[in-house]
Formats: sequence, C-alpha cells, structure tokens
Amino acid sequence: MKYELLKTEGRAKRGRFHTVHGVIETPVFMNVGTVAAIKGAVSTDDLREIKCQVELSNTYHLHVRTGDKLIKELGGLHKFMNWDRPILTDSGGFQVFSLAGIRKIKEEGVTFNSHIDGRKIFMGPEESMQIQSNLGSTIAMAFDECPPALAERKYVEDSVARTTRWLYRCKEEMARLNSLEKTINKEQLLFGINQGAVFNDIRIEHAKIISELDLPGYAVGGLAVGESHEQMYDVLDHVVPYLPQNKPTYLMGVGTPANILEAVDRGVDFFDCVYPSRNGRHGHVYTNHGKLNLFNQKFEKDMRPIEEGCGCPTCRSYSRAYVRHLLKAKEMLGMRLCVLHNLYFYNTMMEEIRDALDAGEFAAYKKRKLDSMAQGQD
Amino acid sequence: MKYELLKTEGRAKRGRFHTVHGVIETPVFMNVGTVAAIKGAVSTDDLREIKCQVELSNTYHLHVRTGDKLIKELGGLHKFMNWDRPILTDSGGFQVFSLAGIRKIKEEGVTFNSHIDGRKIFMGPEESMQIQSNLGSTIAMAFDECPPALAERKYVEDSVARTTRWLYRCKEEMARLNSLEKTINKEQLLFGINQGAVFNDIRIEHAKIISELDLPGYAVGGLAVGESHEQMYDVLDHVVPYLPQNKPTYLMGVGTPANILEAVDRGVDFFDCVYPSRNGRHGHVYTNHGKLNLFNQKFEKDMRPIEEGCGCPTCRSYSRAYVRHLLKAKEMLGMRLCVLHNLYFYNTMMEEIRDALDAGEFAAYKKRKLDSMAQGQD
Repeated sequence: MKYELLKTEGRAKRGRFHTVHGVIETPVFMNVGTVAAIKGAVSTDDLREIKCQVELSNTYHLHVRTGDKLIKELGGLHKFMNWDRPILTDSGGFQVFSLAGIRKIKEEGVTFNSHIDGRKIFMGPEESMQIQSNLGSTIAMAFDECPPALAERKYVEDSVARTTRWLYRCKEEMARLNSLEKTINKEQLLFGINQGAVFNDIRIEHAKIISELDLPGYAVGGLAVGESHEQMYDVLDHVVPYLPQNKPTYLMGVGTPANILEAVDRGVDFFDCVYPSRNGRHGHVYTNHGKLNLFNQKFEKDMRPIEEGCGCPTCRSYSRAYVRHLLKAKEMLGMRLCVLHNLYFYNTMMEEIRDALDAGEFAAYKKRKLDSMAQGQD
Repeated sequence: MKYELLKTEGRAKRGRFHTVHGVIETPVFMNVGTVAAIKGAVSTDDLREIKCQVELSNTYHLHVRTGDKLIKELGGLHKFMNWDRPILTDSGGFQVFSLAGIRKIKEEGVTFNSHIDGRKIFMGPEESMQIQSNLGSTIAMAFDECPPALAERKYVEDSVARTTRWLYRCKEEMARLNSLEKTINKEQLLFGINQGAVFNDIRIEHAKIISELDLPGYAVGGLAVGESHEQMYDVLDHVVPYLPQNKPTYLMGVGTPANILEAVDRGVDFFDCVYPSRNGRHGHVYTNHGKLNLFNQKFEKDMRPIEEGCGCPTCRSYSRAYVRHLLKAKEMLGMRLCVLHNLYFYNTMMEEIRDALDAGEFAAYKKRKLDSMAQGQD
C-alpha cells in the first residue's frame, strides 16, 4: 500500500493509491454494487466498459443475504463477482443505523433485526471486521455509529467517543485477521471514519485522534444525511485539514456532481453514492447541461443520444426517444441503459477532474463544469 | 428476396434467405423483443453478441404503446432499436385474440380493448399491414384468426375461410403500401399463415389455397396453444408437405429445444418463442444436459458456469453460485444473465443444426442432442 500525492491545487489532491488489487487514480468515484451487483442489471463486465476503478459492496447486505461465510468459502468477493480490481466494503454501520429494525447500542456493539427476515443479529467492531475479512475486500471501513444529522451535542460527543474506542478494536481485530493463514486478503486495508455531525470542534478533535492511528486512509462519515450542502461544505472546510494529506480522503455517500466538485476542492479524493444508479432507474440522467427526466414528453421524438459525444454504451447506440419508450413500457432495459450512462458520466467526470488537476487547471474546470450543468439545455 | 434451399435431409431444410436487411441462415430461431426490447434488460447490442440473426417484435404491443406512427416518424423500427439485421413483426392477431379485452370479430376485422388503457381499437387486415409497414419490418405476418386449440370443426372451418379472405386483403394492401413513396421498407415481405387447429384436412386444404398466392414465406400458426406435442407433430407431418419447400417454413411460437429439433425434422426452418427469455427471468436455464432451476439450493456453492465450455457472456464470466445469489437477492442482473445464456443456447443450437445439416448428419445430431438433454446432469 502506498499513496502518492502527485499534485495539489489549493487543497485539491491528485493522488495514486497502490493496492494489492491494482492502482486507484484519484479523485475517484466508487460504483456502488450493494449486494455484489450494481442495481439496474449492470455486471462487473459492464463496469470495465464504463471506466469504473473501484467497486463498493455493502457489508450489511451481504451479511444478511447469501452470507459472508459462504462468499469466503467460494474464494471471496472478487472471485464471486469476477472483479479483479479494488473493492471497498463499508462497515455495515450505516445500514444497521438506517435500515435495520429496533436495536440496542451497547459498548460491545449493536443488536438489530435483519430487514429481510427480522432475525436478531449482533454486530460490533470485531464482527464487522470479520465479515469484511471474509469478503476479502481491498479496503475495509471501520465500524462506527453514524448519528442523525440533527442529533444533540451530548449524544454526538458520547457517540464519537464510542466510535473512537471501536476504531481501536477494529484496528486490532484486522491485524489479527490479516495474520491468519486462511484469510483471503492478508493485505486488507482499514480506513478510519471521522464523525461528529455538524459540530466542527467535535469533528476536529476526533480527526486529530484518529489520525494518530496511522491508518491507510480516512473517511468523513455522517454527512449527506439531512444537513444542508452549505453545512456539509463547512464541515469539510474545517475537518479535512486535520486528516492526513498523504492518505486517501473519502467522503462517504456523496453526492451530486456539484457536491463532488466542491468536495474535491476541499481535499477529498474518494467518493461513492447511489445517486447515479438510483436516479438512472427512475429515468433521470446526467448531462453536462444538467439532469434530464426522460419520462418528459418532450423527449418522445428526440433521436439524439442522452448526451451528444458521450462514449457510454447507451449513447453510442440508443436515442432519448428509444430509452424513453423503454422506461414508459417498464422494460428493464430502460433502467439498465440509464444506469450505464449515469455511472459513465460520473466516472468520466472524475477522469476530467484528474486531467484538470494534472494540468493545474482544476479551478477553471470546476467553474466551467458547474456553470454548464447549472445552465440546462434546450 | 430469394430463398436458397442449400440442402435437405429427409424433410429437414437447410436454407439461406436473402432480405433487404441481410441474409438469414436457416433453420433460424428469432429472438423475441416484444415491445422493441428483449425482456430481461437485453439490448440489440447484446443480440449481436449472442448470435441473433432475426429480432421479432410484436405489432399489437407497439401499436398500443408508443405507437407505430411515432416509430415511422422516427425512421422505423430498425433505426429506433438500432438494429440493422432482419426484423419480423407478427400481425397482432395472436395478441388480439389472447390478451385484449372483449371483442367482436366481423368480416372487416376485430374490435378489441387495449390491455393497457382499455381503449377500443379496431384491427383488420389493412390496419395490421399499415402498422407493420409503419414499423418497416423486414417480414410482416398476415393478419389471421388463431382459433382455440379445442375449437369445434364448424368454428374452425368458418374461421379459416375468413383468414383466407383476410390473406388476400393483406397481400393487396401490402402491395399498395410498398408502392408508396413514404414507405420505410418498400421491399417488406408478407408471410401467409396456415390455420385449422388440429384438423389436418382443413389445414391441408388451407395450405394448398394459400400456397397459390406465391408469397415469400409461409407459417404454420395456431399450434403450441394447448394441444399435445404429439398433435403438433402430427399436424406438421401432414401440413408441411403442402407448403412450398422453396420458401421459408415458419412454425410460430414454438418451442422447447426438443420441439424445434422435431419440427426441423419435419421441414420447418423458422422459429420463435418466449421460452428462453421467460424461463431465464425465472432462473430456469438451458444446458446440453437438461434445464436447471438456479433457485435450487444445490447450486449455492457451485462455482461452475451454467454450462462448461459455453461461450455466452454469462458463462464466460459468472458462476451458478453467483447467478443464484443474484436471483435470490432479486437483482435484475440475475435475470439478465439467465436470459443472455438462454438465448445464446437457442441461437447456438440453431447453428449446430445448420452445421449438422451441412454435414448431412442431422439425424445423428438430433438423436445425440435429445438423448443428452433428456439424460440430465449431476
């Protein structure tokens, strides 16, 4: 593992992260494949076609369905999905706190009910690390609590303190797991997660403490959960300077193209978000001139591709009119074509961001891209 | 348009059909894309990958949703779907008689209610030809009535007589449409359809009459609608000899791999069926050793492809265990991978049939294939 900081522009970072599953050029957008599959009938073969560098799978979802033990027995997630590039797994924490049923949070961990069959499950730092080790992902995320955006100060303080104690346990457990003979990926990397809701002082204090653990990467978690964009940018302005610049900086679950541009500007270089696939499944597609709702009547006879000049598998072959027809007819193909386009749009934007940083022109690129997207189109 | 009868073995035909959209090597299986899309998130780009020669779209479905007039305005079905190879459209008759609401059959045509919004629609031979001309398909099917398999003799006699009168009107209307300046495909071909339920004498008499019209191809319709396989084979044994051997012979809506092998043996060389895509969407996949239900527990840890040695996009990359996981997790990707495999299986079987006929070894191939499929697998 080695993170090369190739270039900076203001606080923006252009990096290169070497992992056991290959190199990640950053800034990077990780493509979300919740249950070891990208929603919208998109396969890992498709991901290779649309410039995806890192696939992200959800620990919680894979644990409650199919099961990480089975996946380990079958050789791990890479082999299971036929994907030899990097995979990041989240810790399960976010889903436990947002999806799962009534739960108890204790020092040891969390007890919750599976959203599939209601069965009671316990997950703490050790369990999360064990599951992620079973999956054999390239990067494992620390098990944390993600408090509600509007939680009170006292609750957040206590929660962050526990998240810190959990992080020590995560680090220790991963070291133990990586040393076992039967572990699939003995070079699995642990990223710590900064929390603290919108309380900058709590976040900064937390960032300082976790930075001392010298982990291979750090994430800012607990954002994009209800606070405003301005609050999110304000947190990044304050906290990113206290995370190691010579490590990956990951903003979890963010966001719109504009969010990503703003966050890159504030020193973030890893992203993931369900927007491109979720929006795609609803016929909302991204272009350099804003988002289009393909259900709109005005696209009925529009034989142009979603975006002129776009090199994605959808735009190379199909028109807005055809994709609209598929969506209206509730054909799965319509969703697939929109998701492919949207992920390609995101992955291409990251490529443009890297190129702009390489050329020392990120500020100009960012302005141009934001203006163009805000402008809309005919 | 030219049909070359390259070789025969018994009654089995190995043909080559030249159309304005390219050559069709027969026997051929046409891949069903009901609403201008193959169900299971399969695109025309995918069809090119899985050896599809002819795409089949449904006149009724495209008429009631999106509309053939819009598709004409956009340049026709080929341009709409981005498919430059042959397309066959059915007449709409089958769907009118099976899907649509309460209806009246009169000499002029049929009045029915759209299954989408219930609106009243009239379709007769002229309307069906006009719709198919608007779509610009390579091959248009005659508008016919498909009586129930168990209909009484008198009903079938009257129905077949009307279908014959309708065929004359179809031929006349298509000639008129093909001569119009704004017609998309002025070389659209009309195939006649033989009917008569399981009454061989009615079918033979009908076959003789429609053969005299010297149409570019003939179909046997009204089978695989409830009668037994033996009854279907018996009808083919009796009626195919009365259809022109030097024209395509199309068995509509059939069937299982075994049905196809038996029908080829009886002189049929065009097929279509929803089985491979419908079964695929339910996790039922074809192999040379019988059909597998991938929901079966025994595939949970099976890291083999659906079929060893299969060259389809699914088997090249993914295991039974992974596809089963996707199906169980209700991921659309699971359906897509099964449909791709099944269509590839059918298209490959047709290729094998053509090779066997070329080599004069169809009888041996058929026996081997049927034995192997019936045998099952571990």
